Amino acid sequence: MSATGGELGYIAWIRSRVSHRESTGIGIGDDAAVVRSPQGTDCLLTVDLLMDQAHFDSSAHSAEQIGRKALAVNLSDIAAMAGRPLYAVVAVALSRGAGSEFARSFFTGLERLADEFDVDVVGGDTNIWDGPLVVSVTVIGEPTGSGPVTRSGAKTGDWILTTGEFGGSLAGKHLDFQPRVREAIELHRSVCLHALIDVSDGLAADLWHILEESGVGAVLEADAISISDAAASAASDGKSPLQHALSDGEDFELLFTVGPQQGQELIDAQPLAVGLTKIGEIVEAAGCDLVDAAGHRTPLPRRGWEHQF
Amino acid sequence: MSATGGELGYIAWIRSRVSHRESTGIGIGDDAAVVRSPQGTDCLLTVDLLMDQAHFDSSAHSAEQIGRKALAVNLSDIAAMAGRPLYAVVAVALSRGAGSEFARSFFTGLERLADEFDVDVVGGDTNIWDGPLVVSVTVIGEPTGSGPVTRSGAKTGDWILTTGEFGGSLAGKHLDFQPRVREAIELHRSVCLHALIDVSDGLAADLWHILEESGVGAVLEADAISISDAAASAASDGKSPLQHALSDGEDFELLFTVGPQQGQELIDAQPLAVGLTKIGEIVEAAGCDLVDAAGHRTPLPRRGWEHQF
Repeated sequence: MSATGGELGYIAWIRSRVSHRESTGIGIGDDAAVVRSPQGTDCLLTVDLLMDQAHFDSSAHSAEQIGRKALAVNLSDIAAMAGRPLYAVVAVALSRGAGSEFARSFFTGLERLADEFDVDVVGGDTNIWDGPLVVSVTVIGEPTGSGPVTRSGAKTGDWILTTGEFGGSLAGKHLDFQPRVREAIELHRSVCLHALIDVSDGLAADLWHILEESGVGAVLEADAISISDAAASAASDGKSPLQHALSDGEDFELLFTVGPQQGQELIDAQPLAVGLTKIGEIVEAAGCDLVDAAGHRTPLPRRGWEHQF
Repeated sequence: MSATGGELGYIAWIRSRVSHRESTGIGIGDDAAVVRSPQGTDCLLTVDLLMDQAHFDSSAHSAEQIGRKALAVNLSDIAAMAGRPLYAVVAVALSRGAGSEFARSFFTGLERLADEFDVDVVGGDTNIWDGPLVVSVTVIGEPTGSGPVTRSGAKTGDWILTTGEFGGSLAGKHLDFQPRVREAIELHRSVCLHALIDVSDGLAADLWHILEESGVGAVLEADAISISDAAASAASDGKSPLQHALSDGEDFELLFTVGPQQGQELIDAQPLAVGLTKIGEIVEAAGCDLVDAAGHRTPLPRRGWEHQF
C-alpha cells in the first residue's frame, strides 16, 4: 500500500476515523497492515491498485510486464515490513478488445514472479469493461523474526541506510525491479532494524514518512546517495541526477535505520548481493536537511505526489 | 469473488495453471479462497473489483451506496463459505473531479457496513485518475464451526434451499442488500450444509456452479421459487417474473443443499428472520430440469454472463 497518487488529506481523514480494535496490531499508515487472527497469529495484508497510464502504459509495456509489476509492488510492501509473502488474490478489469492472449500473458507475468517468491495465487475476480486496464493485487504475508518492522521506530543517532540505487526508474526499473523481500528478511535476521520502508513515493518522500511516523528528523549527505545511471540520463530535463534520485518514485529499494554500530557493521560487511549505502543520520530536531560536500545545508522538501480531487 | 462479467474460459485457464501447494486448502473456483497459515490456522480470502457502469452508476447512485456495495459483495462471498468476516482493505481509483466530499461519503458508506459486521478496515490504496471510479475490496475472514462450506459437496437426494427472494435486484436491492453472513453462520451451526454459494451471477447460474463442482444434477420446481416483487415489475420487458428470478444477478441470497431430513426441519422451523424456501432436489444425473405445475420438464440453461474480450 502506498500514498502514490493518493490524496494525503483523505488518507489522514480515513485514518482518523478507523477505530483500531484490539484485534488489530498496526493499521492504516504503514506499508502493510498487521492483522491478528483469533488464534493470536499475525498476518500482513497489503493491497495496491494499478491503473493504465498511471502505473503502466498498456500501449508500450507488455502484458507480462504489467502482470509482473502488479504483484511486485505488493511484494515490496511486504518486504517493507520485513515479512514473507504467502498468498495473493488478483482482481482485474480487462479492456474489452484487449484479447485473451493479452489476458493470459498478463497472468503469466504475474505467476512467474509469484513462483519466484513461493507465493500462491489463490483467487481473484476477472472482469471485462470498456475502460482502461485496472489491476488490484492483494497479498497476505507473515512476519519474520521478531515481528513486523514499521516506519515508526527510528531513533536519534540511527544511521540511515538504503539498498541499491535511486532515480530514473521510469526508464525501466519500475517494471523489472526485484522486490527486496529476501534482503529485508536477511537484514531483519542479522541486525535490529529500527524503521523500514520501501521507496515507492521517492527517496525524500519515503524518508519523510519515517521521520513523521517516528517523530524525529534527519541529516542526509548529498554525496552519499547512490544515484543510478538512469537518474543521470533523466537529468537532461533540467533536474540534476541528485534531484531525480531524491524525488523520482518507484525505485522499490529499502530505506531503513539502525543503530550506528550495526550500521557500521553492515556497511563494512556488505552482506547482501545488492549494495548497502549510508546516506545520513537520524537527529532529534524535526525536519530534514541535505548537506553538500561544501557543508551547505538546505532543507529537503517532502516531494511527495499529492494529486488533487 | 465471482465470475460475473468474467470470461469463464480465462478463469478455467488460470485455474488449470495455478499449482495448489500443500499450504492451500481451497483455491480458485469457490467464493473465497481458504489459505492456511504456517501455524495451521485457516483464513478465508476474497476480493471483488467494482467498476462504474458495470456494478454501479456513479451518476445515479450515491457515494455512500457505492462504498456500502463494494464491501457488501465481499461480505456475501465470506457468507458463501459460512465464514465470519474480520478485516478489509480498500483500494480505490477515484475520478479526478469527483471531489473530496464524494470520497468521504464513499468511505462512510463502506465504514458503516463494516461496523455493522464488526469488520476492521485496516488499510488501503487511494488513487485519483482520469478514468471512471473503480473500487477493489479484499476481505479476510475466518471459518466457523466445522470449517468452510464449499460449492462441491452437494449429494444426490439433497434438498436445494434458498434464503429470501429472487429477481429484479437492479431496481435497488443490489445496492442495499443485507449480506447473509449471520444467516449462513446460523445455518452452519444448526445443520450439516453440503454445498453453499451466494447468488451473485443469478439463481440458475449459481446453481450450475454447485452442480458442476459437485458432479451432480438437479430438478427445480418452478412454482416453488421465491419471486420478488421487483422481478414482477421487471417483467414488463417481456421476460416472465420467473425468468427474472432465475437469470437476474446480484440477489446476494444464499443457495445451499442439505440432506432431506434437515431440509424438512429447516422449512418447518424457519429459524431465520429471512424466509427459507425449498426450490428443488439434487439428482444423480447431470443437468438441471425445471418442472412446472403441469409436470412439464424443460432444461434450465446456464444463463451465466460471459463477456467476451
